[in-house]
Amino acid sequence: MHAIWLENGDLYIRDDVPVPVPLENEVLIRVLRAGICNTDLSLTRGYYAFSGVLGHEFVGLVHEGPDELIGQHVVGEINVACGKCTNCLNNRRTHCINRTVLGIKNRDGAFAEFMTIPLENLHVIPPTLSLDHATFTEPLAAALQIQSQLLINKTDCVMVLGAGKLGQLIARSLALTGCELHVFDRNQTNLDLLSNKGIKTGSVDEIPKGMFDISVECTGSPNGFSIACRSLRPQGTLVMKSTYASNLTLDVSELVVDEITLIGSRCGPFDLALELLINKQVEVEDLIHARYPLGGGLDAFALSKQRGVLKVLLDI
Amino acid sequence: MHAIWLENGDLYIRDDVPVPVPLENEVLIRVLRAGICNTDLSLTRGYYAFSGVLGHEFVGLVHEGPDELIGQHVVGEINVACGKCTNCLNNRRTHCINRTVLGIKNRDGAFAEFMTIPLENLHVIPPTLSLDHATFTEPLAAALQIQSQLLINKTDCVMVLGAGKLGQLIARSLALTGCELHVFDRNQTNLDLLSNKGIKTGSVDEIPKGMFDISVECTGSPNGFSIACRSLRPQGTLVMKSTYASNLTLDVSELVVDEITLIGSRCGPFDLALELLINKQVEVEDLIHARYPLGGGLDAFALSKQRGVLKVLLDI
Repeated sequence: MHAIWLENGDLYIRDDVPVPVPLENEVLIRVLRAGICNTDLSLTRGYYAFSGVLGHEFVGLVHEGPDELIGQHVVGEINVACGKCTNCLNNRRTHCINRTVLGIKNRDGAFAEFMTIPLENLHVIPPTLSLDHATFTEPLAAALQIQSQLLINKTDCVMVLGAGKLGQLIARSLALTGCELHVFDRNQTNLDLLSNKGIKTGSVDEIPKGMFDISVECTGSPNGFSIACRSLRPQGTLVMKSTYASNLTLDVSELVVDEITLIGSRCGPFDLALELLINKQVEVEDLIHARYPLGGGLDAFALSKQRGVLKVLLDI
Repeated sequence: MHAIWLENGDLYIRDDVPVPVPLENEVLIRVLRAGICNTDLSLTRGYYAFSGVLGHEFVGLVHEGPDELIGQHVVGEINVACGKCTNCLNNRRTHCINRTVLGIKNRDGAFAEFMTIPLENLHVIPPTLSLDHATFTEPLAAALQIQSQLLINKTDCVMVLGAGKLGQLIARSLALTGCELHVFDRNQTNLDLLSNKGIKTGSVDEIPKGMFDISVECTGSPNGFSIACRSLRPQGTLVMKSTYASNLTLDVSELVVDEITLIGSRCGPFDLALELLINKQVEVEDLIHARYPLGGGLDAFALSKQRGVLKVLLDI
């Protein structure tokens, strides 16, 4: 089958990858659409020593599996858990010690004609949800994880730093809380997408200091991290939603004196993400920047790496 | 009057410091006893550009002030707030933008025969509470701030790293929650003080990785910070209770992937600290390592700086 293959940091379009064989409790998925995420871009920069088929944002058809699922449209959670370790037994399956992660860690991903995934990771989607929109389930779930970790009140003054792929979904999901929301970026086009929805936006140079109850850092840059820290009031909370290519040097004493809370945030609730997409409470149509066939994967990645480019989809 | 004076990082015993004159809403305190804290030691190492009378843990007699307070024994909160800034108006007076801090920032401290402090910062103590024990109100309040910031359940597995001056109070106050508590240090003598109270202790080399729900870092060393991070389970919480002499370099991506929460923690509730000292729910007698007259302040500081030394008191 065809697939986008990463090896030693280099991307290849291969046509000789064997169709995977589902294990017991797994299903074989015919992938229909997939999305390129910043983690995919980071993997090509060596963020994690992964080799194999990339991709973890997908929607597909069940091709082999239980009779009642065959032909159903599905999305799938990306962490495959052992079910037996301390974390699994304590209801932290996304942190399973023995986990494999779709297209990220020890498991081939979704940028291929077929993929396998455990039955328990699947979520069937209704015909009313388009394939394009369903592809956003995984990143929207990640955005919603913030609200699983942190109660956000209407009176909270919240900043999102970065209006890129993930920042857009974070801003749109946070707007549903009714909080006082401000999104900052240098890219006016991406900010305009949010202003059009009534969300307050501004340039990074305009970020006030010491003002926000909660700041969400989505830039992945050390400078973004510093700006987000400085934007907080004492006893404020910084949500770290990006991975960083290198270690960061922090003035921890300042965090202690100001009693700042930092929260790392990763994968989130698929059920809620699907509900918001189905009900169009979070709209994603305007986030689709371009689409490519699987064979155009290298061009899709090249475009996706350009500053300000939002979601690039793969039609598979 | 006599006072312990810090200037350009050097300590002096002075006998020519003018007795301070209380402003409106302030009282004049005759200091009776004071305690040396790690922040005092940090100040002598240039942590903060402070010049003046050191000291912020104290108990004294009201010498000038409202009639009903004259002659009463009091302790006092160390942050002097303006009452008008955003932080004050939002009930974050310890984070007042214009604050002065007793013996730490733009305000002479307690290592002197007399000191002034606003009336609103005072807490009258009952005759049943000894002067020695009352001197622990401020650091015990700081220890209790952890429980103001974080709900600690009986089922939580909690580590305290560092059994020094502050670590002892943190461990003793956390023990009251009934949580599964473990304290680690290299100093067996200090650990024994906690074992004697039924608290589980161990050497730093024995700290398990990925186990604790909550870890409290009280060593102030970069190595301690790393050890405390590694001790946490995914989605665990690291409480930062120390200030650090220099910036720390962190693998922030690891914090994001493991969804770790870091919380900076500083000053805490005096009322609760006094209640626990009065009722002897937190015992402190065994934490008094030595006592010196004010004139022996330099020796008191020299002793206090030695590894493993607990509270050094000044009889004033």
